[in-house]
Amino acid sequence: MSSIAKPTRFSVKPLHLLTRRLADVASGRAEPDLVITGARALSTYSDRILIDREIWVAGGRIAAVKEAGSYRGGSAAIYDAQGGIIGPGLVDPHIHIESSMVTACAYAEAALLNGTTTIFCDSHEIGNVMDVAGIEAMMEDAREAPLSIFHTLASTVPATTPELETAGGDLTPEKIGALFDKWPEAVALGEKMDFVPVTMGDERSHAIIAAALSRGRPVSGHVYGREFVAAYAASGVTDTHEAVDRDIADDLLEAGVWIFLRGGPPTTPWHSLPEAIKTMTELGASPRRIAVCTDDRDAEDLLAFGLDWVVRQAYRIGVPRTTAWAMGSIAGATRYAMDGEIGGLGGGRRADLVLLDDDLVPQSTWYGGELMVDRRSITPTLEATLEARYRYPDAAYATIHLPKELKLTPELPTAPVTANVIRAELPGIVLKHVQLQLEPANDWQTLFDRHDLAFVTVVERHGKSDGNVARGLLQNFGLKHGAVASSVGHDSHNIIIAGTNEADMAVALKAIEAERGGICVVRDGVVTAMVPLPVAGLMSDKRVHLVAGEVQALKVEWEKAGCTLPYMGFNLIPLSVIPEIRITDKGMVLVPEMTQVPLFEAAE
Amino acid sequence: MSSIAKPTRFSVKPLHLLTRRLADVASGRAEPDLVITGARALSTYSDRILIDREIWVAGGRIAAVKEAGSYRGGSAAIYDAQGGIIGPGLVDPHIHIESSMVTACAYAEAALLNGTTTIFCDSHEIGNVMDVAGIEAMMEDAREAPLSIFHTLASTVPATTPELETAGGDLTPEKIGALFDKWPEAVALGEKMDFVPVTMGDERSHAIIAAALSRGRPVSGHVYGREFVAAYAASGVTDTHEAVDRDIADDLLEAGVWIFLRGGPPTTPWHSLPEAIKTMTELGASPRRIAVCTDDRDAEDLLAFGLDWVVRQAYRIGVPRTTAWAMGSIAGATRYAMDGEIGGLGGGRRADLVLLDDDLVPQSTWYGGELMVDRRSITPTLEATLEARYRYPDAAYATIHLPKELKLTPELPTAPVTANVIRAELPGIVLKHVQLQLEPANDWQTLFDRHDLAFVTVVERHGKSDGNVARGLLQNFGLKHGAVASSVGHDSHNIIIAGTNEADMAVALKAIEAERGGICVVRDGVVTAMVPLPVAGLMSDKRVHLVAGEVQALKVEWEKAGCTLPYMGFNLIPLSVIPEIRITDKGMVLVPEMTQVPLFEAAE
Repeated sequence: MSSIAKPTRFSVKPLHLLTRRLADVASGRAEPDLVITGARALSTYSDRILIDREIWVAGGRIAAVKEAGSYRGGSAAIYDAQGGIIGPGLVDPHIHIESSMVTACAYAEAALLNGTTTIFCDSHEIGNVMDVAGIEAMMEDAREAPLSIFHTLASTVPATTPELETAGGDLTPEKIGALFDKWPEAVALGEKMDFVPVTMGDERSHAIIAAALSRGRPVSGHVYGREFVAAYAASGVTDTHEAVDRDIADDLLEAGVWIFLRGGPPTTPWHSLPEAIKTMTELGASPRRIAVCTDDRDAEDLLAFGLDWVVRQAYRIGVPRTTAWAMGSIAGATRYAMDGEIGGLGGGRRADLVLLDDDLVPQSTWYGGELMVDRRSITPTLEATLEARYRYPDAAYATIHLPKELKLTPELPTAPVTANVIRAELPGIVLKHVQLQLEPANDWQTLFDRHDLAFVTVVERHGKSDGNVARGLLQNFGLKHGAVASSVGHDSHNIIIAGTNEADMAVALKAIEAERGGICVVRDGVVTAMVPLPVAGLMSDKRVHLVAGEVQALKVEWEKAGCTLPYMGFNLIPLSVIPEIRITDKGMVLVPEMTQVPLFEAAE
Repeated sequence: MSSIAKPTRFSVKPLHLLTRRLADVASGRAEPDLVITGARALSTYSDRILIDREIWVAGGRIAAVKEAGSYRGGSAAIYDAQGGIIGPGLVDPHIHIESSMVTACAYAEAALLNGTTTIFCDSHEIGNVMDVAGIEAMMEDAREAPLSIFHTLASTVPATTPELETAGGDLTPEKIGALFDKWPEAVALGEKMDFVPVTMGDERSHAIIAAALSRGRPVSGHVYGREFVAAYAASGVTDTHEAVDRDIADDLLEAGVWIFLRGGPPTTPWHSLPEAIKTMTELGASPRRIAVCTDDRDAEDLLAFGLDWVVRQAYRIGVPRTTAWAMGSIAGATRYAMDGEIGGLGGGRRADLVLLDDDLVPQSTWYGGELMVDRRSITPTLEATLEARYRYPDAAYATIHLPKELKLTPELPTAPVTANVIRAELPGIVLKHVQLQLEPANDWQTLFDRHDLAFVTVVERHGKSDGNVARGLLQNFGLKHGAVASSVGHDSHNIIIAGTNEADMAVALKAIEAERGGICVVRDGVVTAMVPLPVAGLMSDKRVHLVAGEVQALKVEWEKAGCTLPYMGFNLIPLSVIPEIRITDKGMVLVPEMTQVPLFEAAE
């Protein structure tokens, strides 16, 4: 049934080349390619469900939505929706592909299974590792994907300064401007995470914002704290997915900022939708400028908790079904001024369509008129496309650069010291700064038992320093034995390792080096679980279900090792923009003071 | 209180040059220029009214909306809203400046008095007269106005073909493309009026649409008839103001077309809002993609029936007050992807603000932070700006080119004939085709009395033909004596004259020639009323209240002369795209057959 060997965003011609054909089809002078009949139509234009409709598709676009039975037969393929609901494909206005640990081409499989046909991706992780080359490789990857992927350019790389950490990337205003000029799919500036410098009027931060605004591109945001909202909005930011509760969501909305309600896997701290949506359900805001998004999903969660799941969460909380789907489709399309192309069932739009059951569970997905998922199974067309995934350039497979000799643990104190310790606390976003008085002991294990500690070490991996290693202590992490390690240590993506002994930590580090990146668990010198992430040390190059399986196995071993923080929270330990204390390759950083502290100070 | 001698759209710097200052002001590190305190804020982002607010303005933009009383005093000017409602300035998504018979600079006065601060103008009339030069003169005019004027480029010039009428302009796809490339304020293609050729797949029509779509500019529409909706939407059209009743409005909405509910003066056929709004009030469509607009207003009606009046009509019909104002502001802004700049009270937006009473009647208007209307009176700032209006180039004052000798009336038949007569019927849009059997008579007056007729004549005025004159007969026009004439004969804007005798018709024509354009009434050789329209034969160069006075006087004489059609309807007599019969400089045209018929045929 497919007419296109490998559907991508470019398989459907631009509308201006198709208007005459579409007018002919809509008028009955020419045959459609496909008629989906026996459907109810979910209108995101009017927030209604229209009964007895059929959708005429030609050239990968919607020629018309007519009354069911209008098509009298001819050459068109017929798909009987059997009374199901046809809605526009979902539009995810804010995601990071790297979080899923798969490439853009592989991400598409999960997206299409979940009824998502367009995403707006902020690839700041690969930007942090590989600078412009990484962003551009991701854009090439995205162009090959059977999914419409637009980019919100990484805006805050590095997250802090070269004084505080060693990053692989440094995206200056000039580089960002050049990316906008070169890549038309770079439609916005990605989340401007350094909201404190932005609200303080920092020159580089505002120069980056200006690189977008001066080109007519909007700016995405990331802000915590009601006190920052006014100045942040005044700086030109017009969306955020970080509205974590009712009142800040309401403040942001009134400051002119689009709200993307973020649904996260329900056990994580990222599931902010239930609180933020109270701006609607409790404070009476209309849905005019409210969308939903996923933000981050690992490979496993990506399959289970897609944007469709987020839409259903909104529906369960009390948002009408049509409005919830509109928040997942036309809202994001409108935010990016693409509502003439996607987000609804209008004439001329891309035929990105989803067949839904009455609970809004996607059954079938068409991408540009091509059936990609049929009754919850991927079609041969999608299968073939997924087997022809983009391959990243060799440089992307060579981003782990380690010195030969490394000392991964601190020296055992021989006199009483005050230790600046990182205390892990659930839900895992904020890490507490604890000052511990350590008395000398015969070995580390004695101190670990006494104070509930483990080693935590960051190793610079970009080959930019002379082998920077920072060694610290982590409290309340629960690690019972062995080591865990990851090359996804946000945002500079140096290697973060926690362990109870240096030998297992060294094994973990070597394993990551051997796989050119990854996340692993080690016990007694043996790697018990590993998700290899050879692409920039961030992504696998396998299909999403394979990576999901690896992640699932990792989570089992991770839990067995006793870790209190999930691995995604562990990956954030070096993220030196979140309070209170972090560790980068240059040592311990106090946030928001943005000052360094040594591991040991003379005891008080 | 004003800091700018002559506020225009360019007086407020682009946001990217102001973000640091705005962040400073919003954070309290720098002083605002203006604080409007003691206000309720009308939120078009959430459809709510927020109590006890104050608006901080800096550099002509909104730095923040804070709780009333937040500003502690300093250098800012203070304006006490005394508990009134502050809303964003209105955004009119579809208007024709020429209909108002004043220039863009003069139009601004009426707009600001009515709380409108942004308009999207389709200047197809001056395009019909002066081609690209006319459009560009209008754009220069617009740049000098104290109002944000964007352009939707005239898309259907001429309205038909050179075989059927002689127009001054011929806007080819190439010319339209070049205008898009030269003028960034050309943000969309104007109403594509030839909806029948568009839906039939006409090559030139689609090439013009492609000139817009290929540049990422949306296309505005104009369509009658539910049977055309699907093919018209499939042709890439994404808005219309011609949704004249509930069902076509609903069809258009579902076809992905933004609906601009048109409010017209209530006695005219243009007041389609009360019927079209039933898609919301009866059929339950959400307001997500529904705006309001004015379309056409003469100088007098412009003052009395502004977009604020249209908003209040929606409110009176039952749309909530906040949603009605949102339909007049954020909706149009969103349709043109300018919601980051206008349409709401968000941080960084232009300080285009209106103080409203509880019935949504505008009291004061700020344009880019400058107070232009204060408690219903224009300020010295606006007064000075209006006195420094743009002057059109000399060529615009020389668009009436008439031959010396003209025969304005047909020969009296000397044998029985069948006459193809135009029958005027209220409300005046459709003109009926009547075939009359005329017996010979001694004079025309005998025939006029017998058949309720008058002369109707169109004179080509672009100097493009060798003195084309078409002579016809008009039934049921009611003209008792003398003549009426206009240089605003849509859409080619040749001169249309109706009269009971050739002498008065000649006087009317000479009067229009002398004034270089206009609309007049003549009786017994004397011009009893005249609105001079020297700019392209379409517009006055005077202030709006002066022209409104002239129009008012014209209407009095027009009515005294007995005319059944109002002058705006009279102006449409040559518009050969509306059924059933029209007269152009080339003769009588049957619509929609698009064929010519002679005045007289051999009697049956």
